[in-house]
Amino acid sequence: MIRVAVDAMGGDFAPEEQVKGAMLAIKRYDDIEITLYGKKEEIEKYLTDSTRITIEDCREVIPMDTHDPRGAIRGMKDSSMTRAMMSLVEGKNDCMCTSGPTQALIVGALLVVRRMEGFMRPALVPTIPSLTTDGTLILDCGGNLDIKPEHLVQQAKFAVTYCKEVLHREDPKVGLLNIGTEEGKGREFENECYKLLKESGLNFVGNVETKQILEPPCDILLSDAFTTNMVVKTVEGTAKSIGKILKSNLKRGFFGKIGALLSMKNLNRFKQEINPDNNGGAMVIGVKHPLVKPHGSSTAITFSYGIGKTSDMVRGDVINKVAQLLKEEGEIKNE
Amino acid sequence: MIRVAVDAMGGDFAPEEQVKGAMLAIKRYDDIEITLYGKKEEIEKYLTDSTRITIEDCREVIPMDTHDPRGAIRGMKDSSMTRAMMSLVEGKNDCMCTSGPTQALIVGALLVVRRMEGFMRPALVPTIPSLTTDGTLILDCGGNLDIKPEHLVQQAKFAVTYCKEVLHREDPKVGLLNIGTEEGKGREFENECYKLLKESGLNFVGNVETKQILEPPCDILLSDAFTTNMVVKTVEGTAKSIGKILKSNLKRGFFGKIGALLSMKNLNRFKQEINPDNNGGAMVIGVKHPLVKPHGSSTAITFSYGIGKTSDMVRGDVINKVAQLLKEEGEIKNE
Repeated sequence: MIRVAVDAMGGDFAPEEQVKGAMLAIKRYDDIEITLYGKKEEIEKYLTDSTRITIEDCREVIPMDTHDPRGAIRGMKDSSMTRAMMSLVEGKNDCMCTSGPTQALIVGALLVVRRMEGFMRPALVPTIPSLTTDGTLILDCGGNLDIKPEHLVQQAKFAVTYCKEVLHREDPKVGLLNIGTEEGKGREFENECYKLLKESGLNFVGNVETKQILEPPCDILLSDAFTTNMVVKTVEGTAKSIGKILKSNLKRGFFGKIGALLSMKNLNRFKQEINPDNNGGAMVIGVKHPLVKPHGSSTAITFSYGIGKTSDMVRGDVINKVAQLLKEEGEIKNE
Repeated sequence: MIRVAVDAMGGDFAPEEQVKGAMLAIKRYDDIEITLYGKKEEIEKYLTDSTRITIEDCREVIPMDTHDPRGAIRGMKDSSMTRAMMSLVEGKNDCMCTSGPTQALIVGALLVVRRMEGFMRPALVPTIPSLTTDGTLILDCGGNLDIKPEHLVQQAKFAVTYCKEVLHREDPKVGLLNIGTEEGKGREFENECYKLLKESGLNFVGNVETKQILEPPCDILLSDAFTTNMVVKTVEGTAKSIGKILKSNLKRGFFGKIGALLSMKNLNRFKQEINPDNNGGAMVIGVKHPLVKPHGSSTAITFSYGIGKTSDMVRGDVINKVAQLLKEEGEIKNE
């Protein structure tokens, strides 16, 4: 059994969606058991089936809009998020899923769960939709904006291992986000990354322009955290605005109305495809246990995919495989 | 009469679309006259109505894929682009429109047309679609990636003057692209820009996240050239990919097909709205004469809007007004 720690109180619609999501996940995956961390009396309101689900009562909740994530992680020892993290460290659980505040998650990942030995810069890695694969991993998305090229290359290695072991993609391809495809384009940062990636032994496809953001020639896209943030939110914003235009246009005029009605089913399928939540959310890489963060506004179904994703990282033994890789590369360096 | 220099040979479909675009523009604007620069015999193939249009025969064309824009501008003195630029300097024309290679245009803008006195960093400024206004100006989009905050603020002042005088927007709002809305977010660059913008006397609305890229709370968005490039191309790429998904989804199944047929008219209207070409293309700011660049792949109609836009800059007397502003601010500094 894979033991999943679930922060039942993190999320805009917690604990209802988190508890319902846990029950959904139990039905979908028969090799998991879940511990829900949170206020017992609130969780019990929604827990209609406790098959392979237990509750650990916690009296505190880190607020979604916390301005002091460091203070929250350090000070609120009985919060659902901290307790779930501690359970990983204590060996009670194998992986964790939370829709709680991202900055608190990142701080907790570093302070409580801790970095993998030899891993320089843990990162948050969302998956964005892709027309060429079933999703593109994009990184670095950390809170810290300054990153060195060697950090990024190490993160890429983690992402490649994830793609192989969990997504079962053979020889995953890595691309560098840049303003042009030719070598030599971009800032000093891009040029250094390009050089390191070429020598890294990874399947590096070179520079990728953001024109191809949703249909890149690779599985993994790399950039600094500032740029990645700008690009991911641009995709989100553009999709949302196009949806609005489309909706208002489809409803214009008599034929538009009929067309809209008939197209509704197909439009909904389109929304599903573009919805980044269906891939389970972002994962934290470079720490000692799998942590996955579905959107704060996750519904039960979205959250259940997050539980699936974090348990997938255990199934694929991703962290041990990356640790092995780091060790081997360390040995190579020592020779 | 406003005298417009048109590079008839620049563009993927030149000279056909450029010549047809010129004839369209003549019909739309009764206060312009056009000189077409390019190979006379090729232009004459498409010029079916020469009302207020003359041809200046040029024997060279800067290739769309030139790898040496500097060499091209310096060496090809009889190219359609260089000759059109020279006509501005010689006082034969008031403004120019070209769909030729962007890098050559930028080099030519600096070497031939030249910077306005006191303007530190000319920039290429595209307009992206907006749901809140009829378009957002986004800059810096130069070829040079390192920009100082004071350059960006000066560029913003040009953009504000353009919004006032050409787009007739009262008190145009300026926003800074950033990873969060609170002051203090982002890199050192964003923090310096924020400080300068607050003190600039401009109507500064603060940081804007790219989630709002197509419906920002402002008329003008600022960032460094690397980020702007990434963001603009992400909008482009996302819109294109969504179009693809939509098309394939709308055609799925029987009802989807009927829906697609009935929605076609509305979908086309949507495409028009999202199409960045309808605003005439990008303009070069900070040089002595108006230069506008519709997309390389412009059709006649798109190109005609570009001619409209460059002549609008003359109608709005934008360059003289910015020059006046620079002078006044220079005087203020000297006191």
